[in-house]
Amino acid sequence: MTVMQEIRRRQFLIGSAGIVGAAASGMPAIAQEDAAALPDYVSWKDADDLILHSEQTLETKRAAQGAELITPSNDLYIRNNLPAPPEDIVADRDAWEVGFEGVGSPVTMTVGEMKTVAVETVVCVLQCSGNGRAFFEHETSGSQWSVGAAGNVVWTGVPLRNLVEAMGGIAEGMTWLTGTGGEEIPEGLPKETIQVERSVPKEVLDRAILAWEMNGEPLPLAHGGPLRLIVPGYYGVNNIKYVKRIAFTAEESPAKIQQTGYRTRPVGEEGDPSQPSMFEMPVKSWITGPLEDAKAGRVQIHGVAMGGASAVEKIEVSTDGGESWTEAGFIGPDMGPYAWRPFVLIAELGQGTHMLASRATNAKGEAQPENFEPNERGYGNNGWRAHAVEVTVS
Amino acid sequence: MTVMQEIRRRQFLIGSAGIVGAAASGMPAIAQEDAAALPDYVSWKDADDLILHSEQTLETKRAAQGAELITPSNDLYIRNNLPAPPEDIVADRDAWEVGFEGVGSPVTMTVGEMKTVAVETVVCVLQCSGNGRAFFEHETSGSQWSVGAAGNVVWTGVPLRNLVEAMGGIAEGMTWLTGTGGEEIPEGLPKETIQVERSVPKEVLDRAILAWEMNGEPLPLAHGGPLRLIVPGYYGVNNIKYVKRIAFTAEESPAKIQQTGYRTRPVGEEGDPSQPSMFEMPVKSWITGPLEDAKAGRVQIHGVAMGGASAVEKIEVSTDGGESWTEAGFIGPDMGPYAWRPFVLIAELGQGTHMLASRATNAKGEAQPENFEPNERGYGNNGWRAHAVEVTVS
Repeated sequence: MTVMQEIRRRQFLIGSAGIVGAAASGMPAIAQEDAAALPDYVSWKDADDLILHSEQTLETKRAAQGAELITPSNDLYIRNNLPAPPEDIVADRDAWEVGFEGVGSPVTMTVGEMKTVAVETVVCVLQCSGNGRAFFEHETSGSQWSVGAAGNVVWTGVPLRNLVEAMGGIAEGMTWLTGTGGEEIPEGLPKETIQVERSVPKEVLDRAILAWEMNGEPLPLAHGGPLRLIVPGYYGVNNIKYVKRIAFTAEESPAKIQQTGYRTRPVGEEGDPSQPSMFEMPVKSWITGPLEDAKAGRVQIHGVAMGGASAVEKIEVSTDGGESWTEAGFIGPDMGPYAWRPFVLIAELGQGTHMLASRATNAKGEAQPENFEPNERGYGNNGWRAHAVEVTVS
Repeated sequence: MTVMQEIRRRQFLIGSAGIVGAAASGMPAIAQEDAAALPDYVSWKDADDLILHSEQTLETKRAAQGAELITPSNDLYIRNNLPAPPEDIVADRDAWEVGFEGVGSPVTMTVGEMKTVAVETVVCVLQCSGNGRAFFEHETSGSQWSVGAAGNVVWTGVPLRNLVEAMGGIAEGMTWLTGTGGEEIPEGLPKETIQVERSVPKEVLDRAILAWEMNGEPLPLAHGGPLRLIVPGYYGVNNIKYVKRIAFTAEESPAKIQQTGYRTRPVGEEGDPSQPSMFEMPVKSWITGPLEDAKAGRVQIHGVAMGGASAVEKIEVSTDGGESWTEAGFIGPDMGPYAWRPFVLIAELGQGTHMLASRATNAKGEAQPENFEPNERGYGNNGWRAHAVEVTVS
């Protein structure tokens, strides 16, 4: 076929950012597991695209991520530290109340009132601290996430800075922004052992929003509706669901999830407040196709890349396990510094086994390392080698 | 409540594009009609957000459009000129074939082959020519669309220019790009009377794509899967579903839908090839909330604005039926010249009746007219007065 030969021969404008890019979605998802029945509270999700780790942990299949600009809500991962509050909290969304403390004039405000203050839409990556845990070689407790505890999501809500400004600003001496979730605490348990409460540096006030909408629809209960604290560039755990209290505090939350949980610590050691907390995400990328097999010739290699807390600027792909790298192209509009960007490289692959890898660099010049240091809980893995895939080309 | 008073008193940074904007979604959709049972082929859609005009025509409710960055697939309108082909055409999507004619080397190519050529993602408005028909005062045949025969959609596929380049370019003397749909023609009917085939100026080659994916998922059959011709900036009818033939031609298609259909003609006159065809869309906007009632005080007015075939640059809102105008702010990332942008203005409204209107201006300096001239079929209505809403503030 002359034209296809011509196509194979020619150099196309692959790689020119924003003009030609990649999205090999539309390809059937590779069945990593058979579709399982989903729990009731997420029965509206697409079971074919999800891996059910447990009642509270669902992962998006790698192939289903394709080269998506936005992760459809029905494919987005779920990771809840506690069961969701009862459904009736989203019956009258505008009536949901949040208490504000550590500001000039502490106040309680409803979502309905917030909607008359200001509105903003931000696109950002939502990613669990343990995404990539399965790629560590040491034994780790927790869900064995591969790459699917992450998605690129549109959030709409009120910028927190607009509220705080009207409340007289942050009270003197306060250095942390502490968000408290509305989950019910089972009777008899000390609150600190289980409550979902996180403190992040107050500087995130420049970007944090209180979101009532996700991907153009009212925020589902399963994802934190009626209201969720969104801290763009920060790991998922800091994005408090069913947020009922926003406090500027002098100290970090006493909750276990803050004091000893979600910290990177040497393998075998206990959690300790002196260890680094899972705050800002690092630069990261992964290939989403092909994952197993391909036909010899021109092959579309695609995936997603994010800069973490700084915009992603460059993405390189290797088809020889990291011996050599070729710059790939981003596709679709740039949706801001905290969003991921789909990428594509169309490469000529001969028969045999190929190790496909991707390596992203952000605006600060930070690139993914070849290997990420093991840590007890398996957090933060962004090593490019661990995320590579071996593909058989025939 | 001191803080809410303070909020009402202060001037917030509403209106600074990209920083603070509007999305009052998360509000319950106003029930324009009771949710109807959807036809089988679109049973996966959200019945609560749709108005069922007929088996082949479903409209998105105005309130459900909110201030969406992207229209969720389950809310997107449906308008089919013919019933969709049988489901089995999406069983093996990569096997779908398209015949290319009027190029240097005519050829048939599969979707699987196209995926190895190049990939692009584009966000653009999909809008029916008759969107806004219900606002004309003369009697019109056809679906009585209000504002909901439109959505903002992410498409991923191969740029047509990359294919045509490899095929030796457009053959000499050809001036039209003609796309043919894969719908079945009932026996006994002359093909021209019913076939979905449209010709558009060949210059759209700079932007047209053949899309296999919509909103991050394989293109649903109901929206033209496995493959649809997307012509950003052009009315929906030119975006051929189940596209099976792409031909560069010297003449426009002989199909009725091209020759006499989809042309703006004086009221009472017959269709004629000399009349303007429904090609490029004009600048347009509409308010999506509030639509009926609001509480006195600070009210969030939101909607969507598009530039047509040129980027939208400015959006103004009036709360007094067009006597005075205030510039509103766009929210969320700019997704390119063919996408719509959600907007918001938070305005102080006193008790009484207010006529809320919006008026968009595009990069060419074209603004919405106050009134759009009536035409027989009720096409292309972008008059701001007809799209205004009367809201009772109490």
